[in-house]
Amino acid sequence: MNSAPMNSLLIQLVGGQTVKTLKVVVIGGGSSYTPELVEGIILHNATLPVGEVILVDVPMGEEKVKINEALVKRMFHKAELQVEVSYTFNRKEALYGADFILTQLRVGGLEARSKDEHIPLKYGVLGQETTGPGGFAKALRTIPVLLDICHDIEEVCPKAWLINFTNPSGIVTEAIHKYSKVKCIGLCNVPIGMQYEAAERLGVNPKELYCKFTGLNHLSFMTHAYYKGIDRLPEVLGISEDEGIVQNIEKIEEMDIVANQLGLMLSPYIQYFYFEKSMIAEETENIRAGKGTRANEVQEVEKALFEIYKNKDLDVKPVELSKRGGARYSEAAIELINSIYNNSNDIHVVNVANRGSIPELSDDAVVEINCVINKQGATPIQTGNLPITVKGLVEHVKAYEVLTIEAAVTGDKTIALLALINNPFVHDVGDAKNILNELLEAHKAYLPQFFH
Amino acid sequence: MNSAPMNSLLIQLVGGQTVKTLKVVVIGGGSSYTPELVEGIILHNATLPVGEVILVDVPMGEEKVKINEALVKRMFHKAELQVEVSYTFNRKEALYGADFILTQLRVGGLEARSKDEHIPLKYGVLGQETTGPGGFAKALRTIPVLLDICHDIEEVCPKAWLINFTNPSGIVTEAIHKYSKVKCIGLCNVPIGMQYEAAERLGVNPKELYCKFTGLNHLSFMTHAYYKGIDRLPEVLGISEDEGIVQNIEKIEEMDIVANQLGLMLSPYIQYFYFEKSMIAEETENIRAGKGTRANEVQEVEKALFEIYKNKDLDVKPVELSKRGGARYSEAAIELINSIYNNSNDIHVVNVANRGSIPELSDDAVVEINCVINKQGATPIQTGNLPITVKGLVEHVKAYEVLTIEAAVTGDKTIALLALINNPFVHDVGDAKNILNELLEAHKAYLPQFFH
Amino acid sequence: MNSAPMNSLLIQLVGGQTVKTLKVVVIGGGSSYTPELVEGIILHNATLPVGEVILVDVPMGEEKVKINEALVKRMFHKAELQVEVSYTFNRKEALYGADFILTQLRVGGLEARSKDEHIPLKYGVLGQETTGPGGFAKALRTIPVLLDICHDIEEVCPKAWLINFTNPSGIVTEAIHKYSKVKCIGLCNVPIGMQYEAAERLGVNPKELYCKFTGLNHLSFMTHAYYKGIDRLPEVLGISEDEGIVQNIEKIEEMDIVANQLGLMLSPYIQYFYFEKSMIAEETENIRAGKGTRANEVQEVEKALFEIYKNKDLDVKPVELSKRGGARYSEAAIELINSIYNNSNDIHVVNVANRGSIPELSDDAVVEINCVINKQGATPIQTGNLPITVKGLVEHVKAYEVLTIEAAVTGDKTIALLALINNPFVHDVGDAKNILNELLEAHKAYLPQFFH
Amino acid sequence: MNSAPMNSLLIQLVGGQTVKTLKVVVIGGGSSYTPELVEGIILHNATLPVGEVILVDVPMGEEKVKINEALVKRMFHKAELQVEVSYTFNRKEALYGADFILTQLRVGGLEARSKDEHIPLKYGVLGQETTGPGGFAKALRTIPVLLDICHDIEEVCPKAWLINFTNPSGIVTEAIHKYSKVKCIGLCNVPIGMQYEAAERLGVNPKELYCKFTGLNHLSFMTHAYYKGIDRLPEVLGISEDEGIVQNIEKIEEMDIVANQLGLMLSPYIQYFYFEKSMIAEETENIRAGKGTRANEVQEVEKALFEIYKNKDLDVKPVELSKRGGARYSEAAIELINSIYNNSNDIHVVNVANRGSIPELSDDAVVEINCVINKQGATPIQTGNLPITVKGLVEHVKAYEVLTIEAAVTGDKTIALLALINNPFVHDVGDAKNILNELLEAHKAYLPQFFH
Repeated sequence: MNSAPMNSLLIQLVGGQTVKTLKVVVIGGGSSYTPELVEGIILHNATLPVGEVILVDVPMGEEKVKINEALVKRMFHKAELQVEVSYTFNRKEALYGADFILTQLRVGGLEARSKDEHIPLKYGVLGQETTGPGGFAKALRTIPVLLDICHDIEEVCPKAWLINFTNPSGIVTEAIHKYSKVKCIGLCNVPIGMQYEAAERLGVNPKELYCKFTGLNHLSFMTHAYYKGIDRLPEVLGISEDEGIVQNIEKIEEMDIVANQLGLMLSPYIQYFYFEKSMIAEETENIRAGKGTRANEVQEVEKALFEIYKNKDLDVKPVELSKRGGARYSEAAIELINSIYNNSNDIHVVNVANRGSIPELSDDAVVEINCVINKQGATPIQTGNLPITVKGLVEHVKAYEVLTIEAAVTGDKTIALLALINNPFVHDVGDAKNILNELLEAHKAYLPQFFH
Repeated sequence: MNSAPMNSLLIQLVGGQTVKTLKVVVIGGGSSYTPELVEGIILHNATLPVGEVILVDVPMGEEKVKINEALVKRMFHKAELQVEVSYTFNRKEALYGADFILTQLRVGGLEARSKDEHIPLKYGVLGQETTGPGGFAKALRTIPVLLDICHDIEEVCPKAWLINFTNPSGIVTEAIHKYSKVKCIGLCNVPIGMQYEAAERLGVNPKELYCKFTGLNHLSFMTHAYYKGIDRLPEVLGISEDEGIVQNIEKIEEMDIVANQLGLMLSPYIQYFYFEKSMIAEETENIRAGKGTRANEVQEVEKALFEIYKNKDLDVKPVELSKRGGARYSEAAIELINSIYNNSNDIHVVNVANRGSIPELSDDAVVEINCVINKQGATPIQTGNLPITVKGLVEHVKAYEVLTIEAAVTGDKTIALLALINNPFVHDVGDAKNILNELLEAHKAYLPQFFH
Repeated sequence: MNSAPMNSLLIQLVGGQTVKTLKVVVIGGGSSYTPELVEGIILHNATLPVGEVILVDVPMGEEKVKINEALVKRMFHKAELQVEVSYTFNRKEALYGADFILTQLRVGGLEARSKDEHIPLKYGVLGQETTGPGGFAKALRTIPVLLDICHDIEEVCPKAWLINFTNPSGIVTEAIHKYSKVKCIGLCNVPIGMQYEAAERLGVNPKELYCKFTGLNHLSFMTHAYYKGIDRLPEVLGISEDEGIVQNIEKIEEMDIVANQLGLMLSPYIQYFYFEKSMIAEETENIRAGKGTRANEVQEVEKALFEIYKNKDLDVKPVELSKRGGARYSEAAIELINSIYNNSNDIHVVNVANRGSIPELSDDAVVEINCVINKQGATPIQTGNLPITVKGLVEHVKAYEVLTIEAAVTGDKTIALLALINNPFVHDVGDAKNILNELLEAHKAYLPQFFH
Repeated sequence: MNSAPMNSLLIQLVGGQTVKTLKVVVIGGGSSYTPELVEGIILHNATLPVGEVILVDVPMGEEKVKINEALVKRMFHKAELQVEVSYTFNRKEALYGADFILTQLRVGGLEARSKDEHIPLKYGVLGQETTGPGGFAKALRTIPVLLDICHDIEEVCPKAWLINFTNPSGIVTEAIHKYSKVKCIGLCNVPIGMQYEAAERLGVNPKELYCKFTGLNHLSFMTHAYYKGIDRLPEVLGISEDEGIVQNIEKIEEMDIVANQLGLMLSPYIQYFYFEKSMIAEETENIRAGKGTRANEVQEVEKALFEIYKNKDLDVKPVELSKRGGARYSEAAIELINSIYNNSNDIHVVNVANRGSIPELSDDAVVEINCVINKQGATPIQTGNLPITVKGLVEHVKAYEVLTIEAAVTGDKTIALLALINNPFVHDVGDAKNILNELLEAHKAYLPQFFH
């Protein structure tokens, strides 16, 4: 148990001042996103004195985490930064002395995701790996693991900040807030992506555009886009783009029309809610054509990425990573950490407990909204009432989320069924029962709470 | 304009007291439910001194309203009550001096209902004539007519009470509360049906069972069933019945299981929300088999009923009426009027403005809850938070209702589309557009607000 | 421990039915109000089959409770009712098998009250034995005793109803709701007194007047007075009466003017809030003139009453009791018990947890409002927003009450001070400190929680 | 009408960019605070390109405004800034093309203030010129004038920002929000003073201390004082200072003790609420001793100040101004304007509409809380529930404020009386009536709304 003292020796000079360097622990360090994150650390080196990065993973991910470790070392070396890099399977030991912990893990890997997407589709129901029954299964598998991590943090480094990217990010963050005392902020790259897209449509600098958001993770809405004090969202909505923010997902043309009718810029995930029929048709066709679901596609992308990462000459983030769907992920994450560390009162759009910001939702509901970020954490800015046109959907999804968390924590099958019935992609209790039974069976190894 | 003075001459002796008799106006007097209502008036004659009943209808309904007029006269005669009975197409004149107005009209008749049910099904969507896109179209047709009636009432008999049965009863009542000053209470026979069913399962006198409800019209839940101070709802839920409250609709077996899991007794209409797939399959099969939808079935029943009503020997409510689906309709309606007239502080489950009774819903949202009824009207009893297991659905449907009312009043097609997108039976914006276009076109004659 | 089985033998015939008779326990049975209560029981004998009355008191009150026991026996005898009557100092034993428990005790007796009234006045502050610093001291003494009683009830007769009259009734009831599971309703005779007064002013039958109340115990406001559906409160307020509801307290003329300006009928206790200066002047003068405070006056009245009660020929409630200030006390209490026992859904104005009825106050705040009463207890009717003209005062007093309860339960002197600072009669922290110190010292024997 | 075009010619080079310079209009330009403000403009010249300052006043203030004009010109000259300076009595003309309008007027001058302070004291009631009956009278005089200004702004320069310092600042700002569309932020120097005091006690840089506030203007509470992420308020409260923030008012020793007990740092104005008796004694003694009230003292200070301002050699803010009580006034004001102009998302403590930030207060209640400031204005950060220990007082005062605004706008004497009854310094309706009558009479010339 020697990491803590060791870490305290790490010292750097920042702006003439001698400061203790930061220890960053990446749980799920074998993820293909790791180079993205490290690039962010390198770019913010001037204000964020990271001295150590530990990649934590599970033994079955050893190959990937080792590849990442080597690449990360090469990246820091190229950047001429003295950062200690290592990997470990001993999570608790890694956490000693941690300042920031980032979680980007996937319980069960992409094989589990593939099941999450396939099983519901057998009953004509969209799996959707974050907001649908697929995301529901992912939450059941993930929440207990994240709570375990939290209990380690509570014991070992209670002052550390946990930045959670693990999907379904909003649900997982709410579970952490409800069942642990860890200081946690949930993060997603969709809001920053929407901000950049809006700026691009207007032809302005995204840093000068102040976008206000409301809603939940993967069910978020941009309500205003202020440029120099003027709300230019109507202009943004008037411009239709073929590509735009819609990453990972192929874009449905009518999305822009609906957004315009709503007067809101929409998270690309809202396609699943508003164009379910088309999405089901597309996914069904992909499977029929042997292409599989997005999970299968991602598996291919990942395989190719790690081949690239292995290349000993590679010492920067490879361009191919952008295809993976994590655009601006490092920007969002590292700027958030930077605002905390430097106590800067910057505004970020993150997943936090509502505390009255959206009056329709309960105080402990995790929402994705604009917050002031400083050393105390994330304080919501007043968001105001949900637009009536999306209020019902948001409230319905939040009820589903609350029940999902309860099911994940208790392992109660009836609550799990009632959660699924509340999922907007599930329209029939019969389907819900069948999907639940198959999902529980398929993921049995990762769901001990349901099989004690 | 002579009804007002004439009416004031009607005097009866009640309990030794001389009182002004009551004038009851039935708008949609040609409905097959009219004998049900009249039976109620007869049964409550001891406390409710009705002196005049006017049946108001439109010229195309002349045949039916004439049949009803004759039957009603025979019924009062048989009961040895001196009640003036007449029919008219002049609504405003009929309203002079009215004490209670009952609305049971159907804009466009059963033909329109048939379209409401058929058109959505073309896109694989349940029409459902009260809670689905069918009910949506019905609301668009009905709200302007009801508001017209209200403006007549405001002018001619502002102190009269409007008891609204016209479906979708909750939505229509909310529109009246928002856009007129008429004293209006919305009524549905589902809650009283559920109360009788619960009593039957327990083997107790329904009058001694105090049932607490929450939710919206046709989306209502019994949360408690107190018998002598003890909540016996768990027992009620433990008893499965083949038939039970489910009138009009064939009952799905799993309903009782879900109800048990929820810990709530469910309105039979909740089958549409929870067993959509089965309901679609059933309706599709019925159409394929040439049986049509429920509208077509009801058309047959109605035709047969009026044949019976014509019979000059008939002077009581015929037993065949109970098949029509309005069981306990007269009981609910006349007991409500009785509680108002006699200022009795009885508790009824009615549709009223929420005013904080269900904290999650806005003050002006019309909800179906327990109210104290007296001469001042209906005051909600504290209902408390919605159970988390149905909260999301109720909130989602309420958002749909609010938008539907706005669309009906403004004739704004975009709002109409956004309303439909919020309807829990509609899962795809593409479907919503197609269904909306077809419904508007099909009901053009009844939707002038959309075609000016 | 044999009362329980004994009690179960008591059987009476009510309306042809054989029913178990009721056991009523009066804690503070030596109170001069006891004959009032017994008169109520006698008057409601037809619907309320009381079989046993036990008067519980403390040894120092033996003389009075014995006098009461004898009088009560004579009263039941005169009424030809077979009710077992006894007295005891063993509270817990008395509670076995109890159906209704009434608390009308005064910790420290009238001597303590006299101190409550005198001490604050030394600093120019109104004592006021229920709403002022006097009531504060009374709450500190009383709450622990009531919670002790509640713990006995939880153990011995958890299904019994506790009807609490002990002042400050609202505060004590809130403490019981927060710190015990006992089924408790708080009661005061002010609302019924105001209703009778309003009826008298209108010249109508009080039973036909439906009065709506808002606010807190001894800070209550009549907002409507419906007679046959018409709100006649404006008329009520237009009539000024010299005497009216103001019992116990001499009436200040301007009260009627203020009430008229507010559009609200006012509890007589509001004189203390609105005419503090006059009340201080009056009390100071009374003391100067050797008349003492109201406590001293009441001591005289009590002494005289018990002289009368001793009279062996007396077998009804003596008329002199009405001077004591408890008018309609028995009416309110016994009708409440009657509504519970007979499950009648009657509406009473009682002290209950708010649960959203007054949106400005928290759900667990005890308020004095209209409730539906049945075997399940008291369910608030929607009251609505507090009038802005009294909202601030009500909210201020509620904050004082919450802190007072916390101080009484914890014995924390700082919280006690902060409570006093929030009392509207206390205008200076210096006074608060002095008054608090003197009160704690004076009542040391009754405030062990502050002196451990 | 030539100011608008003229102004548009003013161009300055800021950071290499050509920008339109800003026009600042100071209403009440003859105030002794003007040099404070101008010093702020000079100090922020690098980021705030002010091109024109117009001092607006009324003819009776000509002497003072002329002295100020000359001094301001000398100050800008000394600072080598090209800023056009003028004064005018034509308010509306001055507003053409304005970017920022600052209001620091005093309707009726210090003579009126003196009456505000003296009249209530005749009845033993604290006048208190901002929070007491004195402030009430000031609000009645001031609100109509401010609304007149707002109507000019709406017509002439609707995009301009109004920064309101005019006391009672919270009440006046709420009136503006309720009765005009002007973009207005209310400002007070108390919060910044408290922040500096807290920093001084801790020995840290005030710019690095992040203080959270709750409450109302002149009834504000610091709830947290974060230094590098740690809440050091407990330390702050543990240090007692003789002088501290208490400017204008002599400090009462016990204030620090109470603050410690509350766990809150207190606005110095809270002395009036918590130590009323001492404050009354002090003011009474001052008058008896011929010293008069604070108004009389300020009159002397002002006279001396303008003697100093006249000095042609003076070209900076004189040190004597700090005695006047407006410390950090310029800092607060100009930094606020700077954050708006530069769209900087800084956090300031200002008076804005609550919009849910403090859940206990209504959305349109003006509160003094932490806000994000940018070109869109001030958006509240989530403040959370009021501490129960001060909740009642804050709510009571807010009710008083709401009624005061209504009285000021309607000129309704009954509402004015009910407002006064709700003022925490008024304890008796009799006093309220007398004070109201005298105040209305004394200020008749400035209260036309009450005498039409």
